[in-house]
Amino acid sequence: MSLFGLSLGRLIEALCCLPGVGPKSAQRMAFYLLESNREGGQRLAQALLEALDKMTHCQTCRILSETDLCSLCADSRRDHGQLCVVEMPSDVQAIEQATNYAGRYFVLMGHLSPLDGVGPEALGMDLLAKRLDTDQIREVILATNLTVEGEATAYYISELAQTRGITTTRIAHGVPLGGELEFIDSNTLSHAFQSRQHL
Amino acid sequence: MSLFGLSLGRLIEALCCLPGVGPKSAQRMAFYLLESNREGGQRLAQALLEALDKMTHCQTCRILSETDLCSLCADSRRDHGQLCVVEMPSDVQAIEQATNYAGRYFVLMGHLSPLDGVGPEALGMDLLAKRLDTDQIREVILATNLTVEGEATAYYISELAQTRGITTTRIAHGVPLGGELEFIDSNTLSHAFQSRQHL
Ligand SMILES: [Zn+2]
Ligand SMILES: [Zn+2]
Repeated sequence: MSLFGLSLGRLIEALCCLPGVGPKSAQRMAFYLLESNREGGQRLAQALLEALDKMTHCQTCRILSETDLCSLCADSRRDHGQLCVVEMPSDVQAIEQATNYAGRYFVLMGHLSPLDGVGPEALGMDLLAKRLDTDQIREVILATNLTVEGEATAYYISELAQTRGITTTRIAHGVPLGGELEFIDSNTLSHAFQSRQHL
Repeated sequence: MSLFGLSLGRLIEALCCLPGVGPKSAQRMAFYLLESNREGGQRLAQALLEALDKMTHCQTCRILSETDLCSLCADSRRDHGQLCVVEMPSDVQAIEQATNYAGRYFVLMGHLSPLDGVGPEALGMDLLAKRLDTDQIREVILATNLTVEGEATAYYISELAQTRGITTTRIAHGVPLGGELEFIDSNTLSHAFQSRQHL
Protein backbone atom coordinates (compact mmCIF):
# COMPACT_ATOMS: atom_id res chain seq x y z
CA MET A 1 0.00 0.00 0.00
CA SER A 2 3.04 2.31 -0.02
CA LEU A 3 1.76 3.36 -3.45
CA PHE A 4 -0.45 5.93 -1.72
CA GLY A 5 1.51 6.47 1.48
CA LEU A 6 1.99 4.77 4.82
CA SER A 7 -0.94 6.38 6.61
CA LEU A 8 -3.42 4.86 4.13
CA GLY A 9 -1.82 1.44 4.62
CA ARG A 10 -2.14 1.79 8.38
CA LEU A 11 -5.80 2.81 8.06
CA ILE A 12 -6.62 -0.20 5.85
CA GLU A 13 -4.84 -2.52 8.29
CA ALA A 14 -6.74 -1.01 11.23
CA LEU A 15 -10.09 -1.40 9.45
CA CYS A 16 -9.33 -5.10 8.93
CA CYS A 17 -9.78 -5.62 12.68
CA LEU A 18 -13.54 -5.05 12.29
CA PRO A 19 -15.62 -8.25 12.22
CA GLY A 20 -16.54 -9.28 8.68
CA VAL A 21 -14.09 -6.85 7.06
CA GLY A 22 -11.32 -8.28 4.86
CA PRO A 23 -8.48 -6.44 3.08
CA LYS A 24 -10.62 -5.71 0.01
CA SER A 25 -13.54 -4.11 1.84
CA ALA A 26 -11.15 -2.35 4.24
CA GLN A 27 -9.53 -0.72 1.22
CA ARG A 28 -12.92 0.24 -0.15
CA MET A 29 -13.87 1.78 3.21
CA ALA A 30 -10.59 3.70 3.48
CA PHE A 31 -10.91 5.14 -0.02
CA TYR A 32 -14.52 6.03 0.65
CA LEU A 33 -13.70 7.88 3.89
CA LEU A 34 -10.76 9.75 2.36
CA GLU A 35 -12.38 10.50 -1.01
CA SER A 36 -16.06 10.91 -0.44
CA ASN A 37 -16.84 11.35 3.23
CA ARG A 38 -14.07 12.97 5.27
CA GLU A 39 -16.64 14.45 7.62
CA GLY A 40 -18.00 10.97 8.30
CA GLY A 41 -14.46 9.79 8.89
CA GLN A 42 -13.80 12.51 11.46
CA ARG A 43 -17.12 11.73 13.15
CA LEU A 44 -16.27 8.03 13.26
CA ALA A 45 -12.84 8.63 14.81
CA GLN A 46 -14.29 10.96 17.44
CA ALA A 47 -17.22 8.65 18.24
CA LEU A 48 -14.83 5.74 18.62
CA LEU A 49 -12.52 7.61 20.98
CA GLU A 50 -15.47 8.90 22.99
CA ALA A 51 -17.10 5.47 23.31
CA LEU A 52 -13.79 3.81 24.24
CA ASP A 53 -13.32 6.47 26.88
CA LYS A 54 -16.84 6.49 28.34
CA MET A 55 -18.17 2.96 27.99
CA THR A 56 -17.43 0.66 30.88
CA HIS A 57 -19.28 -2.25 32.45
CA CYS A 58 -22.08 -2.11 34.99
CA GLN A 59 -20.70 -3.25 38.35
CA THR A 60 -23.87 -5.24 39.00
CA CYS A 61 -24.82 -6.93 35.73
CA ARG A 62 -21.63 -6.44 33.63
CA ILE A 63 -23.53 -4.89 30.74
CA LEU A 64 -21.91 -2.12 28.67
CA SER A 65 -22.70 1.16 30.39
CA GLU A 66 -21.42 4.71 30.76
CA THR A 67 -22.07 4.55 34.50
CA ASP A 68 -21.13 2.11 37.28
CA LEU A 69 -24.80 1.21 37.61
CA CYS A 70 -26.53 0.72 34.25
CA SER A 71 -29.97 2.13 33.46
CA LEU A 72 -31.56 -1.33 33.79
CA CYS A 73 -30.06 -2.02 37.22
CA ALA A 74 -30.90 1.52 38.33
CA ASP A 75 -34.57 1.12 37.36
CA SER A 76 -36.34 0.39 40.67
CA ARG A 77 -39.53 -0.72 38.85
CA ARG A 78 -37.81 -3.83 37.51
CA ASP A 79 -38.39 -7.05 39.46
CA HIS A 80 -35.40 -8.12 41.57
CA GLY A 81 -36.88 -11.61 41.83
CA GLN A 82 -36.14 -12.59 38.23
CA LEU A 83 -32.63 -12.76 36.85
CA CYS A 84 -32.05 -13.40 33.17
CA VAL A 85 -28.54 -14.57 32.29
CA VAL A 86 -27.25 -13.87 28.77
CA GLU A 87 -23.93 -14.08 26.98
CA MET A 88 -23.65 -10.59 25.47
CA PRO A 89 -25.04 -7.05 25.88
CA SER A 90 -26.62 -7.35 22.43
CA ASP A 91 -28.69 -10.27 23.79
CA VAL A 92 -30.13 -7.95 26.46
CA GLN A 93 -31.09 -5.54 23.73
CA ALA A 94 -32.73 -8.31 21.68
CA ILE A 95 -34.77 -9.48 24.70
CA GLU A 96 -35.76 -5.93 25.64
CA GLN A 97 -37.02 -5.34 22.10
CA ALA A 98 -38.80 -8.67 21.65
CA THR A 99 -40.39 -9.37 25.04
CA ASN A 100 -42.04 -7.58 27.94
CA TYR A 101 -39.60 -9.05 30.46
CA ALA A 102 -39.26 -6.66 33.38
CA GLY A 103 -36.77 -8.43 35.62
CA ARG A 104 -33.03 -8.09 35.98
CA TYR A 105 -30.10 -9.26 33.88
CA PHE A 106 -26.66 -10.70 34.23
CA VAL A 107 -24.29 -10.54 31.26
CA LEU A 108 -21.59 -13.20 31.15
CA MET A 109 -19.64 -11.52 28.33
CA GLY A 110 -19.09 -14.90 26.73
CA HIS A 111 -19.60 -18.58 27.46
CA LEU A 112 -17.61 -21.36 29.09
CA SER A 113 -14.95 -22.48 26.64
CA PRO A 114 -12.21 -24.48 28.35
CA LEU A 115 -10.25 -24.90 25.11
CA ASP A 116 -9.95 -21.12 24.81
CA GLY A 117 -9.14 -20.77 28.50
CA VAL A 118 -12.51 -19.19 29.32
CA GLY A 119 -13.50 -20.50 32.74
CA PRO A 120 -16.08 -19.45 35.34
CA GLU A 121 -13.93 -16.54 36.66
CA ALA A 122 -13.75 -14.81 33.27
CA LEU A 123 -17.55 -14.94 33.07
CA GLY A 124 -18.01 -13.35 36.48
CA MET A 125 -19.55 -16.46 38.03
CA ASP A 126 -18.40 -15.34 41.49
CA LEU A 127 -20.32 -12.06 41.07
CA LEU A 128 -23.30 -14.05 39.81
CA ALA A 129 -23.12 -16.42 42.78
CA LYS A 130 -23.05 -13.44 45.16
CA ARG A 131 -26.19 -12.06 43.54
CA LEU A 132 -27.88 -15.46 43.88
CA ASP A 133 -26.94 -15.40 47.58
CA THR A 134 -28.10 -11.87 48.37
CA ASP A 135 -30.69 -10.65 45.83
CA GLN A 136 -33.63 -12.85 46.92
CA ILE A 137 -34.01 -14.22 43.42
CA ARG A 138 -37.02 -16.48 42.73
CA GLU A 139 -36.15 -17.48 39.16
CA VAL A 140 -33.01 -17.64 37.08
CA ILE A 141 -33.83 -17.50 33.37
CA LEU A 142 -31.06 -19.01 31.29
CA ALA A 143 -30.95 -17.22 27.94
CA THR A 144 -27.48 -18.18 26.78
CA ASN A 145 -27.20 -19.17 23.12
CA LEU A 146 -28.52 -22.60 22.11
CA THR A 147 -25.06 -23.70 21.07
CA VAL A 148 -22.92 -26.41 22.68
CA GLU A 149 -21.01 -23.80 24.72
CA GLY A 150 -24.19 -21.90 25.59
CA GLU A 151 -25.85 -25.10 26.80
CA ALA A 152 -22.82 -26.07 28.89
CA THR A 153 -22.78 -22.58 30.40
CA ALA A 154 -26.52 -22.77 31.16
CA TYR A 155 -26.00 -26.15 32.83
CA TYR A 156 -23.18 -24.74 34.97
CA ILE A 157 -25.37 -21.84 36.12
CA SER A 158 -28.38 -24.08 36.75
CA GLU A 159 -26.22 -26.00 39.24
CA LEU A 160 -25.27 -22.74 40.98
CA ALA A 161 -28.95 -21.79 41.25
CA GLN A 162 -30.37 -25.17 42.19
CA THR A 163 -27.92 -25.75 45.07
CA ARG A 164 -29.41 -22.50 46.42
CA GLY A 165 -32.96 -23.75 45.87
CA ILE A 166 -33.69 -21.20 43.15
CA THR A 167 -36.06 -22.12 40.30
CA THR A 168 -34.19 -22.30 37.00
CA THR A 169 -35.73 -21.96 33.53
CA ARG A 170 -34.26 -22.17 30.05
CA ILE A 171 -35.66 -20.26 27.07
CA ALA A 172 -37.54 -22.69 24.82
CA HIS A 173 -36.09 -24.53 21.89
CA GLY A 174 -37.80 -22.46 19.28
CA VAL A 175 -34.61 -20.72 18.48
CA PRO A 176 -32.89 -22.99 15.93
CA LEU A 177 -30.02 -25.07 17.29
CA GLY A 178 -26.69 -23.39 16.67
CA GLY A 179 -28.49 -20.06 16.34
CA GLU A 180 -27.22 -16.90 17.99
CA LEU A 181 -29.78 -14.81 19.82
CA GLU A 182 -29.01 -11.49 18.27
CA PHE A 183 -29.82 -12.78 14.77
CA ILE A 184 -33.19 -14.35 15.62
CA ASP A 185 -36.33 -12.52 14.54
CA SER A 186 -38.33 -10.91 17.33
CA ASN A 187 -41.35 -13.24 17.05
CA THR A 188 -39.37 -16.44 17.42
CA LEU A 189 -37.37 -14.99 20.28
CA SER A 190 -40.50 -13.73 22.01
CA HIS A 191 -42.14 -17.15 21.65
CA ALA A 192 -39.06 -18.93 22.94
CA PHE A 193 -38.91 -16.55 25.88
CA GLN A 194 -42.58 -17.08 26.77
CA SER A 195 -42.39 -20.87 26.63
CA ARG A 196 -39.29 -21.20 28.78
CA GLN A 197 -39.15 -24.55 30.63
CA HIS A 198 -38.21 -25.53 34.15
CA LEU A 199 -34.87 -27.33 34.21
CA MET B 1 -29.59 2.60 21.78
CA SER B 2 -29.86 4.68 24.95
CA LEU B 3 -30.06 1.29 26.69
CA PHE B 4 -26.27 1.27 26.83
CA GLY B 5 -25.57 5.00 26.74
CA LEU B 6 -25.40 7.79 24.20
CA SER B 7 -21.77 7.32 23.21
CA LEU B 8 -22.47 3.78 22.01
CA GLY B 9 -25.41 5.03 19.96
CA ARG B 10 -23.20 7.67 18.38
CA LEU B 11 -20.53 5.11 17.55
CA ILE B 12 -23.05 2.80 15.87
CA GLU B 13 -24.45 5.70 13.89
CA ALA B 14 -20.96 6.75 12.81
CA LEU B 15 -20.07 3.21 11.71
CA CYS B 16 -23.18 3.16 9.49
CA CYS B 17 -21.47 5.68 7.22
CA LEU B 18 -19.06 2.97 6.03
CA PRO B 19 -19.95 1.44 2.64
CA GLY B 20 -21.75 -1.89 3.01
CA VAL B 21 -22.39 -1.43 6.74
CA GLY B 22 -26.01 -1.35 7.96
CA PRO B 23 -27.32 -0.77 11.51
CA LYS B 24 -27.03 -4.46 12.41
CA SER B 25 -23.40 -4.91 11.41
CA ALA B 26 -22.53 -1.47 12.81
CA GLN B 27 -23.88 -2.64 16.16
CA ARG B 28 -21.88 -5.85 15.87
CA MET B 29 -18.73 -3.85 15.10
CA ALA B 30 -19.29 -1.44 18.00
CA PHE B 31 -19.82 -4.25 20.50
CA TYR B 32 -16.78 -6.05 19.15
CA LEU B 33 -14.53 -2.99 19.50
CA LEU B 34 -15.78 -2.15 23.00
CA GLU B 35 -15.92 -5.73 24.30
CA SER B 36 -13.22 -7.69 22.61
CA ASN B 37 -10.72 -5.40 20.92
CA ARG B 38 -10.35 -1.99 22.56
CA GLU B 39 -6.74 -1.82 21.43
CA GLY B 40 -7.87 -2.33 17.83
CA GLY B 41 -10.47 0.39 18.35
CA GLN B 42 -7.85 2.86 19.58
CA ARG B 43 -5.59 1.95 16.67
CA LEU B 44 -8.46 2.45 14.21
CA ALA B 45 -9.36 5.87 15.58
CA GLN B 46 -5.73 7.02 15.49
CA ALA B 47 -5.12 5.62 11.99
CA LEU B 48 -8.25 7.35 10.75
CA LEU B 49 -7.29 10.73 12.21
CA GLU B 50 -3.75 10.38 10.88
CA ALA B 51 -4.86 9.42 7.36
CA LEU B 52 -7.45 12.22 7.26
CA ASP B 53 -4.73 14.63 8.33
CA LYS B 54 -1.95 13.45 6.02
CA MET B 55 -3.61 12.16 2.85
CA THR B 56 -4.15 14.76 0.17
CA HIS B 57 -4.18 14.60 -3.63
CA CYS B 58 -1.20 14.69 -5.98
CA GLN B 59 -1.17 18.08 -7.73
CA THR B 60 -0.29 16.40 -11.02
CA CYS B 61 -2.39 13.25 -11.27
CA ARG B 62 -4.94 13.76 -8.46
CA ILE B 63 -4.21 10.39 -6.87
CA LEU B 64 -4.35 10.03 -3.07
CA SER B 65 -0.92 10.94 -1.72
CA GLU B 66 0.81 12.22 1.39
CA THR B 67 2.87 14.60 -0.72
CA ASP B 68 2.06 17.22 -3.38
CA LEU B 69 3.81 15.03 -5.93
CA CYS B 70 2.91 11.34 -5.61
CA SER B 71 5.49 8.54 -5.82
CA LEU B 72 4.34 7.60 -9.34
CA CYS B 73 4.62 11.15 -10.69
CA ALA B 74 7.95 11.60 -8.91
CA ASP B 75 9.40 8.45 -10.52
CA SER B 76 11.56 9.75 -13.39
CA ARG B 77 11.86 6.25 -14.90
CA ARG B 78 8.18 6.23 -15.87
CA ASP B 79 7.35 7.20 -19.46
CA HIS B 80 5.87 10.70 -19.81
CA GLY B 81 4.59 9.79 -23.28
CA GLN B 82 1.81 7.52 -22.03
CA LEU B 83 -1.03 8.76 -19.87
CA CYS B 84 -3.54 6.32 -18.42
CA VAL B 85 -6.80 7.90 -17.24
CA VAL B 86 -8.79 6.12 -14.52
CA GLU B 87 -11.73 6.92 -12.31
CA MET B 88 -10.35 6.10 -8.86
CA PRO B 89 -7.04 5.66 -7.02
CA SER B 90 -7.92 2.00 -6.44
CA ASP B 91 -7.95 1.55 -10.24
CA VAL B 92 -4.33 2.73 -10.37
CA GLN B 93 -3.50 0.16 -7.77
CA ALA B 94 -5.29 -2.58 -9.73
CA ILE B 95 -3.41 -1.70 -12.93
CA GLU B 96 -0.06 -1.48 -11.13
CA GLN B 97 -0.62 -4.94 -9.68
CA ALA B 98 -1.96 -6.58 -12.85
CA THR B 99 0.14 -5.10 -15.67
CA ASN B 100 3.68 -3.92 -16.41
CA TYR B 101 2.48 -0.48 -17.48
CA ALA B 102 5.22 2.05 -16.84
CA GLY B 103 3.65 5.30 -18.02
CA ARG B 104 1.84 8.05 -16.13
CA TYR B 105 -1.66 8.32 -14.69
CA PHE B 106 -4.48 10.78 -14.32
CA VAL B 107 -7.17 10.07 -11.73
CA LEU B 108 -10.57 11.65 -12.40
CA MET B 109 -11.96 10.86 -8.94
CA GLY B 110 -15.26 9.83 -10.51
CA HIS B 111 -16.99 9.91 -13.86
CA LEU B 112 -19.21 12.32 -15.76
CA SER B 113 -22.67 12.16 -14.25
CA PRO B 114 -24.80 15.17 -15.26
CA LEU B 115 -27.77 13.96 -13.17
CA ASP B 116 -25.62 14.08 -10.03
CA GLY B 117 -24.13 17.41 -11.05
CA VAL B 118 -20.71 15.91 -11.81
CA GLY B 119 -19.36 17.80 -14.81
CA PRO B 120 -15.91 18.15 -16.41
CA GLU B 121 -14.67 20.65 -13.79
CA ALA B 122 -15.23 18.29 -10.87
CA LEU B 123 -13.17 15.65 -12.67
CA GLY B 124 -10.24 18.01 -13.23
CA MET B 125 -10.63 18.04 -17.01
CA ASP B 126 -8.92 21.44 -17.18
CA LEU B 127 -5.85 20.03 -15.41
CA LEU B 128 -5.99 17.04 -17.77
CA ALA B 129 -6.22 19.30 -20.83
CA LYS B 130 -3.20 21.26 -19.59
CA ARG B 131 -1.19 18.04 -19.33
CA LEU B 132 -2.26 17.07 -22.85
CA ASP B 133 -1.02 20.48 -24.03
CA THR B 134 2.33 20.46 -22.26
CA ASP B 135 3.46 16.92 -21.42
CA GLN B 136 4.28 15.70 -24.96
CA ILE B 137 1.95 12.75 -24.59
CA ARG B 138 1.93 10.18 -27.42
CA GLU B 139 -0.92 8.01 -26.16
CA VAL B 140 -3.87 8.48 -23.85
CA ILE B 141 -5.06 5.14 -22.45
CA LEU B 142 -8.68 5.32 -21.35
CA ALA B 143 -9.16 2.93 -18.43
CA THR B 144 -12.40 4.27 -17.00
CA ASN B 145 -14.95 1.65 -15.98
CA LEU B 146 -16.89 -0.14 -18.73
CA THR B 147 -20.15 1.30 -17.46
CA VAL B 148 -22.41 3.80 -19.21
CA GLU B 149 -20.87 6.68 -17.26
CA GLY B 150 -17.36 5.35 -17.72
CA GLU B 151 -17.89 5.06 -21.48
CA ALA B 152 -19.29 8.57 -21.70
CA THR B 153 -16.34 9.89 -19.74
CA ALA B 154 -13.90 8.01 -21.99
CA TYR B 155 -15.61 9.48 -25.05
CA TYR B 156 -15.33 12.99 -23.62
CA ILE B 157 -11.59 12.57 -22.98
CA SER B 158 -10.98 10.98 -26.39
CA GLU B 159 -12.33 14.18 -27.93
CA LEU B 160 -9.94 16.26 -25.80
CA ALA B 161 -7.02 14.12 -26.95
CA GLN B 162 -7.94 13.75 -30.60
CA THR B 163 -8.38 17.49 -31.18
CA ARG B 164 -4.75 17.69 -30.05
CA GLY B 165 -3.74 14.89 -32.42
CA ILE B 166 -2.92 12.48 -29.62
CA THR B 167 -3.49 8.74 -30.12
CA THR B 168 -6.27 7.45 -27.88
CA THR B 169 -6.77 3.84 -26.81
CA ARG B 170 -9.44 2.16 -24.69
CA ILE B 171 -8.77 -0.92 -22.59
CA ALA B 172 -10.28 -3.96 -24.30
CA HIS B 173 -13.73 -5.29 -23.67
CA GLY B 174 -12.56 -8.30 -21.76
CA VAL B 175 -13.75 -6.82 -18.57
CA PRO B 176 -17.45 -7.71 -18.34
CA LEU B 177 -19.85 -4.90 -19.19
CA GLY B 178 -21.02 -3.08 -16.09
CA GLY B 179 -17.99 -4.40 -14.21
CA GLU B 180 -15.90 -2.19 -11.97
CA LEU B 181 -12.15 -2.39 -12.41
CA GLU B 182 -11.19 -2.91 -8.83
CA PHE B 183 -13.21 -6.14 -8.61
CA ILE B 184 -11.84 -7.78 -11.78
CA ASP B 185 -9.28 -10.57 -11.40
CA SER B 186 -5.71 -9.69 -12.39
CA ASN B 187 -5.58 -11.96 -15.45
CA THR B 188 -8.67 -10.52 -17.09
CA LEU B 189 -7.54 -6.99 -16.35
CA SER B 190 -4.04 -7.69 -17.65
CA HIS B 191 -5.47 -9.17 -20.85
CA ALA B 192 -7.84 -6.25 -21.35
CA PHE B 193 -4.99 -3.82 -20.80
CA GLN B 194 -2.74 -5.58 -23.36
CA SER B 195 -5.39 -5.69 -26.08
CA ARG B 196 -6.44 -2.07 -25.81
CA GLN B 197 -7.82 -0.72 -29.11
CA HIS B 198 -7.37 2.52 -31.00
CA LEU B 199 -10.46 4.68 -30.83
ZN1 LIG C 1 -26.49 -3.30 35.22
ZN1 LIG D 1 0.72 11.95 -9.08
